Amino acid sequence: MSIRQIDFKDVNLSGGFLRKIEKLNEDVTINAVYDRFNETGRVRAFSCTWKEGEPDRPHIFWDSDVAKWIEGASYILAKHPDEGLTAKIESVIDDIEKNQWEDGYVNSYYTTIEPQNRFTVRANHELYCCGHLIEAAVAYYEATGRDRFLKIMMKYADLVDRIFRVEKSAPFQTPGHEEIELALFRLYKCTKLEKYLTLAKFFVDVRGDNEIDKPIVSGVNELYQQDVAPRKAREAVGHSVRACYFYSAMADYALETGDEAMAESCREIWKDIVYRKMYITGGIGSTCFGEAFTVPYDLPPESAYTETCAGIALLYFSHRMFLLEKDARYADVIERLLYNGIISGLSLSGDCFFYENPLEVNLKNHYKIKATKDRVRLPITQRVKVFGCSCCPPNLNRLLSSVGNYVFAVDGDELYVNQFASGTAKTGDIEVEVDTDYPIGGTVRVSAKGVSKVRIRIPSWCEKFTASSEYCIEKGYAVFEVGSVTVNFELPVKIVCADSRVWDNAGKVAVVRGPVVYCAEAKDNNCEDLHMVCLGGESQSMAKILPSGESGLPELEIPACVMLPGNGEELYYPKEKAAYGKTLLHMIPYYAFANRGEDDMQVWFNLI
Amino acid sequence: MSIRQIDFKDVNLSGGFLRKIEKLNEDVTINAVYDRFNETGRVRAFSCTWKEGEPDRPHIFWDSDVAKWIEGASYILAKHPDEGLTAKIESVIDDIEKNQWEDGYVNSYYTTIEPQNRFTVRANHELYCCGHLIEAAVAYYEATGRDRFLKIMMKYADLVDRIFRVEKSAPFQTPGHEEIELALFRLYKCTKLEKYLTLAKFFVDVRGDNEIDKPIVSGVNELYQQDVAPRKAREAVGHSVRACYFYSAMADYALETGDEAMAESCREIWKDIVYRKMYITGGIGSTCFGEAFTVPYDLPPESAYTETCAGIALLYFSHRMFLLEKDARYADVIERLLYNGIISGLSLSGDCFFYENPLEVNLKNHYKIKATKDRVRLPITQRVKVFGCSCCPPNLNRLLSSVGNYVFAVDGDELYVNQFASGTAKTGDIEVEVDTDYPIGGTVRVSAKGVSKVRIRIPSWCEKFTASSEYCIEKGYAVFEVGSVTVNFELPVKIVCADSRVWDNAGKVAVVRGPVVYCAEAKDNNCEDLHMVCLGGESQSMAKILPSGESGLPELEIPACVMLPGNGEELYYPKEKAAYGKTLLHMIPYYAFANRGEDDMQVWFNLI
Repeated sequence: MSIRQIDFKDVNLSGGFLRKIEKLNEDVTINAVYDRFNETGRVRAFSCTWKEGEPDRPHIFWDSDVAKWIEGASYILAKHPDEGLTAKIESVIDDIEKNQWEDGYVNSYYTTIEPQNRFTVRANHELYCCGHLIEAAVAYYEATGRDRFLKIMMKYADLVDRIFRVEKSAPFQTPGHEEIELALFRLYKCTKLEKYLTLAKFFVDVRGDNEIDKPIVSGVNELYQQDVAPRKAREAVGHSVRACYFYSAMADYALETGDEAMAESCREIWKDIVYRKMYITGGIGSTCFGEAFTVPYDLPPESAYTETCAGIALLYFSHRMFLLEKDARYADVIERLLYNGIISGLSLSGDCFFYENPLEVNLKNHYKIKATKDRVRLPITQRVKVFGCSCCPPNLNRLLSSVGNYVFAVDGDELYVNQFASGTAKTGDIEVEVDTDYPIGGTVRVSAKGVSKVRIRIPSWCEKFTASSEYCIEKGYAVFEVGSVTVNFELPVKIVCADSRVWDNAGKVAVVRGPVVYCAEAKDNNCEDLHMVCLGGESQSMAKILPSGESGLPELEIPACVMLPGNGEELYYPKEKAAYGKTLLHMIPYYAFANRGEDDMQVWFNLI
Repeated sequence: MSIRQIDFKDVNLSGGFLRKIEKLNEDVTINAVYDRFNETGRVRAFSCTWKEGEPDRPHIFWDSDVAKWIEGASYILAKHPDEGLTAKIESVIDDIEKNQWEDGYVNSYYTTIEPQNRFTVRANHELYCCGHLIEAAVAYYEATGRDRFLKIMMKYADLVDRIFRVEKSAPFQTPGHEEIELALFRLYKCTKLEKYLTLAKFFVDVRGDNEIDKPIVSGVNELYQQDVAPRKAREAVGHSVRACYFYSAMADYALETGDEAMAESCREIWKDIVYRKMYITGGIGSTCFGEAFTVPYDLPPESAYTETCAGIALLYFSHRMFLLEKDARYADVIERLLYNGIISGLSLSGDCFFYENPLEVNLKNHYKIKATKDRVRLPITQRVKVFGCSCCPPNLNRLLSSVGNYVFAVDGDELYVNQFASGTAKTGDIEVEVDTDYPIGGTVRVSAKGVSKVRIRIPSWCEKFTASSEYCIEKGYAVFEVGSVTVNFELPVKIVCADSRVWDNAGKVAVVRGPVVYCAEAKDNNCEDLHMVCLGGESQSMAKILPSGESGLPELEIPACVMLPGNGEELYYPKEKAAYGKTLLHMIPYYAFANRGEDDMQVWFNLI
């Protein structure tokens, strides 16, 4: 398995959308998340000094929040040494070191609140927190060379190995929320110590196939991916973040061991997600109940849960699948997520967050729910600075500060160009420079040295492109046998539909341009209800591309029809009496919605 | 106010749909409801002998269930003397008489379970039960001339007058569930005793405008129509059955007193319902939360609550509005309800019932809700024999056995023909005979004697008709100055749309023929998902009318398109790649859905 990403440390993005979001995180988000975590007691919790009656009672998943922030901050430090960030991280490590148990245990909640109950409640996120702390420790070590945190976490991992694998002395075998599995694969890759590979494999192998965890409450098995052994799994089931962290670990397993049965499960699960359970934004997890996958083709736009973390988890899974399969379709999904359903979780200002990323906001329904005390639940309509369960913001920190990981890969002396952004990269003898304003324009100039082939992903959305040299197509890549090549992707506005089995989208269309999904907000459009707007006819051919707004991506003006309201004296009437007007629908990139106050928003429009 | 209905007693329907449902009730439903009420202890409850620990504990609204059944049975007795039915009613009256309190109070629940607490809890349906018992007593008296029950209820009404109007000694002024108001107007009309008019007016006047009932819990005021004084009300608000019973009483008030402010409120509220809050089936009450009206144009098809009782209540309100306004549009709504949203509450077999009447069944969503333990609630998919709260079945009894009330009205020597069914009627010097197979065919022959004018309603759905004599149009009626006239309504299949402000119907169409709304069930149609079917193009012009099935109304075959599923390897793709097939959509009358097992069902289809 010689293919590998070019690490973000060796990739310098110099412009374009990916650099924009990477820089926003460096400049704003990383500090905004720390400040909120500091204010809410999450950072202080590691001191384990909280006393009953004090505010900010430590919570079972707070360690993971700060761990993800440390991971993100470490990636920034890897390229931009920063004493302030370093001091904040070191201070947390001081606390962790001080409060680590003699036997290696680390957990601010249990240590402070109920030390007698550690490792007793499967649902209580202990191994999840452990996993995120391991990832943070590896990231900090790889960024700075400092191994204090890494050693702390290795000692904890050794305890976990003894309790869970060797002694089997905990009342459960696999954690309720996965994360430890992929973290252990990562710890193995960093330390090269077989014991961590053994433990990582143990946690994957034992899931869904052990008598201890099996018969919980009906439905919970599915929620925890405990319903089936991983090598027999063919469908994406349960809590979508847990699921995709686990599927990522399954892919790690296949990558590290060559286990073909595991790889086959990964391929089938990935197809089940991407071909049957994924929103056009890349978002996954259709329902708030269990934050879960539901049934195939169930993708309601307004109640879409599509947690930001779930998008990130699907990106991690897809990246591993790319490394396993060297197929461009996996990088297609990463692109879909980066430009749409993940980045919508972050405000343009960089300091506010969506946990849920709906594809429609209909304020009338929100008003109705309030007025009638309806128990139906819809996502919030405005991003906020911090959540009670604030997993998504630091997940954005770590993703955005390492977004360079997803741009290039090398396999021997062959270069893969998966994402398109101006910048340079260097690994071994390979050097590459890319010049593009993608996805504003579709021209991508790649100059690479030290390579025998350049494989440029032809995005799945792309219907036409030209190239400066001859190529053949392999697994979604245009493969060039020269180092310097210019590819030009045509970037028209496209009206797209969903597979008609997606019942909520049947008869509806969305607007995309390249990888960017568009939406309309009511404030840009002068109509009583966005549902009245229909696309079709000249919507595609006469669409106008407007200059980029604050989002950094073009806005659109789409010729459309408006179904005019009736005369107010009959609610139902013959279709022939329906009157239509013309309008120009102003659309903005989906990810940029809800940055100008609460408003109606729509991605899917009726077709005329 | 000289206009009046020709009472059902004087109307003999001889065939057609209205006779079919009238007869089904006589033959099956009236006994089915009694048997279920007998089995479940509702009848026995009147004996007030239940003891703690026994099954079938009396419930606060059981009196009303049996009262509505007695009312319905009385209407049957009025035309078809039946010893069995009479014995059943007399037996209940025996129990009521035996257990009536010295001061007149009647209530099986309070008398049996908590006599010390009578008239203390506004929400506990006491005056609602009282109202239904009054209606039953009047109906039984008018049907049979027997006044024992009537006298019992007059004595109870006198008690209510003393407690609520004179002494104001109860801790509330108006009941949580309206019904007493319209019952008292009816008692007044039957007895001509002013005191009941005074009390009826009192209960209307005091609602929404008294300090005792005003500040309950936020939201409950609206639910109980307690938010605004009736003469200031302009919108339909709250629990839709309570609301329409109250609006019926408001209309009674205007009819009895000529109160123009009250009439104006009625007109505006009716318009708010019919132009903004009514399903195409005539159903009202969009949400299960509070069984209530919501905001204008909020008419989701799948979660539609549209209680059968609410449809019946809107029919009662509309009938009074017709008497007040002599305008055909009110009878249009009665027709819409009779052929669709009320009668859907009854199985073709006559013994099973829907409480809710959704306009869409998508079994995948039901499956999903079960699988994910989603808290979203959808209506049940199959009719049942009895409910815990079984208000709808006996409401159907009383409506169907008096359906003749809605066919004709007379104003001096002018005859109104509001509903079309073969049969005869006689009142005073006026005699009328109608011959038609409406709505299978559109020809209606009316022969009337003793009239100066015949006013035949031109249904709002009717775009073309011919008549055998000259006419002018007044308030939706073709007015003829001859007694014998034949009208021929063209009855094409029509594709209709909703006002585009109805966001759930935007871009969708339904199929109607005359007053009948159609639906498709999956079992008649060979496609993966009814959402894939689109109407348009030749759907209207090439529609084929099939012979009537078990429903007694024609079925339809509609040329339609099917959006074919994608290739399974991409969920989203350019619109140009969407493939369509042709199909013939088999449609049945909406009301007849769910008579052949659980199935997907749809009324609204995407437009192509």
